[in-house]
Amino acid sequence: MQVGMVGAGRMGANLARRLTRAGHGCVVYDSDPEAVEPLRAEGVPTTSSLAELVAGLTTPRVVWLMVPVEHTGGVLDEVAASLDAGDVVIDGGNSYYRDAVTRARELDTGGIHFVDVGTSGGVYGLQRGFCLMIGGEPATVRWLDPVFRALAPGGVDGAAGSRSNGQVDGVGTAELGYLHCGPAGAGHFVKMVHNGIEYGQMAALAEGLEILQRAGIGDGAGVRPDDAEFYGYELDVARIAEVWRRGSVISSWLLDLTAGVLRDDPQMEGYSGHVADSGEGRWTVQTAVDEGVPAYVLTAALYERFSSRRDRGYADRVLSGMRHAFGGHQERQGS
Amino acid sequence: MQVGMVGAGRMGANLARRLTRAGHGCVVYDSDPEAVEPLRAEGVPTTSSLAELVAGLTTPRVVWLMVPVEHTGGVLDEVAASLDAGDVVIDGGNSYYRDAVTRARELDTGGIHFVDVGTSGGVYGLQRGFCLMIGGEPATVRWLDPVFRALAPGGVDGAAGSRSNGQVDGVGTAELGYLHCGPAGAGHFVKMVHNGIEYGQMAALAEGLEILQRAGIGDGAGVRPDDAEFYGYELDVARIAEVWRRGSVISSWLLDLTAGVLRDDPQMEGYSGHVADSGEGRWTVQTAVDEGVPAYVLTAALYERFSSRRDRGYADRVLSGMRHAFGGHQERQGS
Amino acid sequence: MQVGMVGAGRMGANLARRLTRAGHGCVVYDSDPEAVEPLRAEGVPTTSSLAELVAGLTTPRVVWLMVPVEHTGGVLDEVAASLDAGDVVIDGGNSYYRDAVTRARELDTGGIHFVDVGTSGGVYGLQRGFCLMIGGEPATVRWLDPVFRALAPGGVDGAAGSRSNGQVDGVGTAELGYLHCGPAGAGHFVKMVHNGIEYGQMAALAEGLEILQRAGIGDGAGVRPDDAEFYGYELDVARIAEVWRRGSVISSWLLDLTAGVLRDDPQMEGYSGHVADSGEGRWTVQTAVDEGVPAYVLTAALYERFSSRRDRGYADRVLSGMRHAFGGHQERQGS
Amino acid sequence: MQVGMVGAGRMGANLARRLTRAGHGCVVYDSDPEAVEPLRAEGVPTTSSLAELVAGLTTPRVVWLMVPVEHTGGVLDEVAASLDAGDVVIDGGNSYYRDAVTRARELDTGGIHFVDVGTSGGVYGLQRGFCLMIGGEPATVRWLDPVFRALAPGGVDGAAGSRSNGQVDGVGTAELGYLHCGPAGAGHFVKMVHNGIEYGQMAALAEGLEILQRAGIGDGAGVRPDDAEFYGYELDVARIAEVWRRGSVISSWLLDLTAGVLRDDPQMEGYSGHVADSGEGRWTVQTAVDEGVPAYVLTAALYERFSSRRDRGYADRVLSGMRHAFGGHQERQGS
Repeated sequence: MQVGMVGAGRMGANLARRLTRAGHGCVVYDSDPEAVEPLRAEGVPTTSSLAELVAGLTTPRVVWLMVPVEHTGGVLDEVAASLDAGDVVIDGGNSYYRDAVTRARELDTGGIHFVDVGTSGGVYGLQRGFCLMIGGEPATVRWLDPVFRALAPGGVDGAAGSRSNGQVDGVGTAELGYLHCGPAGAGHFVKMVHNGIEYGQMAALAEGLEILQRAGIGDGAGVRPDDAEFYGYELDVARIAEVWRRGSVISSWLLDLTAGVLRDDPQMEGYSGHVADSGEGRWTVQTAVDEGVPAYVLTAALYERFSSRRDRGYADRVLSGMRHAFGGHQERQGS
Repeated sequence: MQVGMVGAGRMGANLARRLTRAGHGCVVYDSDPEAVEPLRAEGVPTTSSLAELVAGLTTPRVVWLMVPVEHTGGVLDEVAASLDAGDVVIDGGNSYYRDAVTRARELDTGGIHFVDVGTSGGVYGLQRGFCLMIGGEPATVRWLDPVFRALAPGGVDGAAGSRSNGQVDGVGTAELGYLHCGPAGAGHFVKMVHNGIEYGQMAALAEGLEILQRAGIGDGAGVRPDDAEFYGYELDVARIAEVWRRGSVISSWLLDLTAGVLRDDPQMEGYSGHVADSGEGRWTVQTAVDEGVPAYVLTAALYERFSSRRDRGYADRVLSGMRHAFGGHQERQGS
Repeated sequence: MQVGMVGAGRMGANLARRLTRAGHGCVVYDSDPEAVEPLRAEGVPTTSSLAELVAGLTTPRVVWLMVPVEHTGGVLDEVAASLDAGDVVIDGGNSYYRDAVTRARELDTGGIHFVDVGTSGGVYGLQRGFCLMIGGEPATVRWLDPVFRALAPGGVDGAAGSRSNGQVDGVGTAELGYLHCGPAGAGHFVKMVHNGIEYGQMAALAEGLEILQRAGIGDGAGVRPDDAEFYGYELDVARIAEVWRRGSVISSWLLDLTAGVLRDDPQMEGYSGHVADSGEGRWTVQTAVDEGVPAYVLTAALYERFSSRRDRGYADRVLSGMRHAFGGHQERQGS
Repeated sequence: MQVGMVGAGRMGANLARRLTRAGHGCVVYDSDPEAVEPLRAEGVPTTSSLAELVAGLTTPRVVWLMVPVEHTGGVLDEVAASLDAGDVVIDGGNSYYRDAVTRARELDTGGIHFVDVGTSGGVYGLQRGFCLMIGGEPATVRWLDPVFRALAPGGVDGAAGSRSNGQVDGVGTAELGYLHCGPAGAGHFVKMVHNGIEYGQMAALAEGLEILQRAGIGDGAGVRPDDAEFYGYELDVARIAEVWRRGSVISSWLLDLTAGVLRDDPQMEGYSGHVADSGEGRWTVQTAVDEGVPAYVLTAALYERFSSRRDRGYADRVLSGMRHAFGGHQERQGS
């Protein structure tokens, strides 16, 4: 099945490669002409305009958008203008799930089918396959099955299969690594929560590693003198991450990667520590609040990213000011 | 009743002044000779050594320690060595409550009475009176009643009394601003929790004020374009703090002080935002953990202080490293 | 200035009383005829229909809505239908601030002025005065000044004034207890954050009091045997709350009230502990997320309310299931 | 190498089996005679008293304690009394790391070597191998290498190895699944943090799954009417967990297990949701506080377990009482 891929960034390019390797025709466009060069060199067909991409597809067309969330709306409008009834647009990016609901409704008036696909796998997706969470009309999703099957890890022989403990049967396509989750927006909803969990997993691991890294502070950092003798360990954080990969309860793919990073840079001095967040962590928290779910951990993980990106926020300075006011404590600028 | 005050910092000096004004003889010593100068100029007797202080007191002696927590143990040992059976040592500082338990037991072998007094009021204590949370043997605490009565706000005519909503009778000395909470350590235990709550109150207010201060960010900071119109307020945080003092549910003494600070420096640019923590906030959290109390708020308030004092901790850098590993995101140093 | 008050619940009735006492004509309507009875008995004019209320007001009319948030939209539509250009509608309830933005825009097309007023003070507002946070067009807000002045505490002679530490001048009407915060929605925005802070203050105090209440658990609740001796205090929580009102750093109006509640019921056995939340705490968190403010404390306070209202949520049961799967731990239903 | 195993619970029995299969002589004792029956039936030698166990071991003896943390001290004292200089005691349980420091020091006076081993793997350890985190003197740990090697997963052919992304070389025994972390206590310290992280990972996943499970609440739970249309998904949580195992960033061994649990009981109705905590999560938090690490996530995960085990704590009831006092809200018992 032919797919027009819009966006040749890390994710889009690897989706195109994986489709091509599976024998699906895939044509790629990116607003940055240089972005498609590596694919062209590999023999993947590319175009120099969106119009050309759309014009060259067999109908009913399938256009997969894999662009940064802030551009998705604009690109989608442009693509939709040149599509016909019966064509399909897939948003595979990290869009807000409510946008999928709205977009599906709007496109439906012109007979265009909209499918939202949460796509996980990062830069390893080419090799491992991508985990796909899909929202849209059942018939359209079913029709796209060959595309999803080609992109997903593909079952017990796939990257994840070897870890299965025999728990793989009876869950339909889920065990192949893709799942039709529900109507429009359901794919992005599930991906949103996936990323919220990802933030939590990452933060849990990062916090724990810092506790290890500081195990030798002695009486520093406010440790009571009586307790200083218990803070004398000089732990090898990189080796500990490695050993945890082997049979422990917390073994995970994120730990696998983290162990690799730590081996190369145990003090992590090459990394800035300004941790970005995409929208999904935020929307997960706002959704939890709407639903009345006390998502302490997912929220704390998001807030740690906020904290990581700033130097002494207004709230911190207010606290200094209060302490000065009631206790005469000096935490003034420059001190 | 004569009291020997050891420590003439902000708290110790004002305790001495308040005792003196109430007609109690108070002699003051500080290891820093300059610290006692202001008191001497006001006519409060001072000594140039600890030995001299102790030697000059009438028996049974009352020595009140008001020194930084890290020096309390050493000073207490030195004082105790020159005391006799029947004398009383008061630790009015921010010591760990378990130290009070241990110290009372040790001093008791020599017939010396130990009393722990949590002392709140900050630099305003001279004027408002100090709130005193007391631990020790009933007889000793009762005998010291005139001292506590002189230091405390003193009931319905005191600073707090006018705010009472008629809820002041039937609670013994509590309505005068001092309370015998229990045996040795109970005073410091209650003060510990008091400070834990203080951290929480401060953090709640500081966070809220920052939300106000950022109400005009428009589409900055990751606000979705659809929502940008709702972030257009330029709020006067100082005036808002002031109006909240007037009849609102969150009126408090901390808000009173905060409103004053904000009026002078609405953007709080004069304050560093490196927020120190004394031990009490930490011990409160560790106690909550022992007791199985889910003290989310008090803990978060403590951790915000930890966060305020560091630039990109190890955990933050680990998160950057993970993001680089799985998503190819660049959050490298210097970028 | 005549005001038509719609809603005679706890808040609306006291607003009407305070306006009446100040000499403003106030007419009251409530969809529940019994709700207005007490006011009628006191001589406050009431009507039996909304139409009658509006018809009887002198123009330009001022209608103040004080109804539950879920009814505000419907009542507002009904009122607006019978108003004329130049009339004013005030929403004094706990509405979402974005609704104020939308409503002001819609009403403006008919020349009707909309003002949003965040109203704090609870059941004590009649006596202390209400703290008012106001959003709307400057001219309209200025014209309503006599109304706001009558409702607010009213400055240094008011309930809060005695606590001022001399910090009251130079902040305009704020020191009288009301403030024009900005254009439409600004009043509800500020009230939203006020309530967010309120949740935080309440939670900080409640957590601390529980730590006190459990100070005597000995080796229960998982305390290590070595530490059990430090958990032997039987603290009088009610008296401690009372003493903290007197000169301590955490003295506040909420503490005043809490001390009264604790005196009557120290174990709080008369209270269910199912803690409701109105929308403001939620919107505060969602706003913090939009703004990128790490509001750990305000969020935790909200989530504690969520937690308080449920018995073993899905997440808890998932945790039990995981523990069973990897460790064989039995936390099955009925066990 | 012969090992005397004290404790034949889930962990101890599987350690004994794995040692036996590797050709090490292993003799087992449990204070509950029935606990050793299954092992005896399998041909593993057992004894009916601790004295008999110790007496039968070749010297230098190796005794591995695998008993509940609350009994470890007592059993250790009993064992140590019958050991000779040169013998080794291993505590493989979930003991507090500071106890290891103290115990090693005490046993050293008699020439007995103490080794602490954090042991992870749960009920799957027999099959996957156990992840071992080891503290003690280098010479003793080196001498015990055959024991550790037999228990650990054992490298690239082990259960975890296939997931390695080529990151396994150069980290010594870590890639085999065991690691000498440092002197006495280091093993339990690392295991403590491991379990702290485990709590965080579990909570992140559980919270996310609940957000999915409640995706169809419509306008329930306080969702604003305008937003209700976005809460209409009926998601199949079990299949989503399954698909996430396949190529997603959050794939992990805990997710593998969770997917299995969910498949059998999607609503988790068979689980109580009273989530126990062993000491390690608590000690992790208390350690983070000592070190000044803002471990928001690990702490929240612990507190969620506290919350899960209680019905309306004192703090919750205090909040109800406050709301009644200031707002007249009725949250009284029975209502």
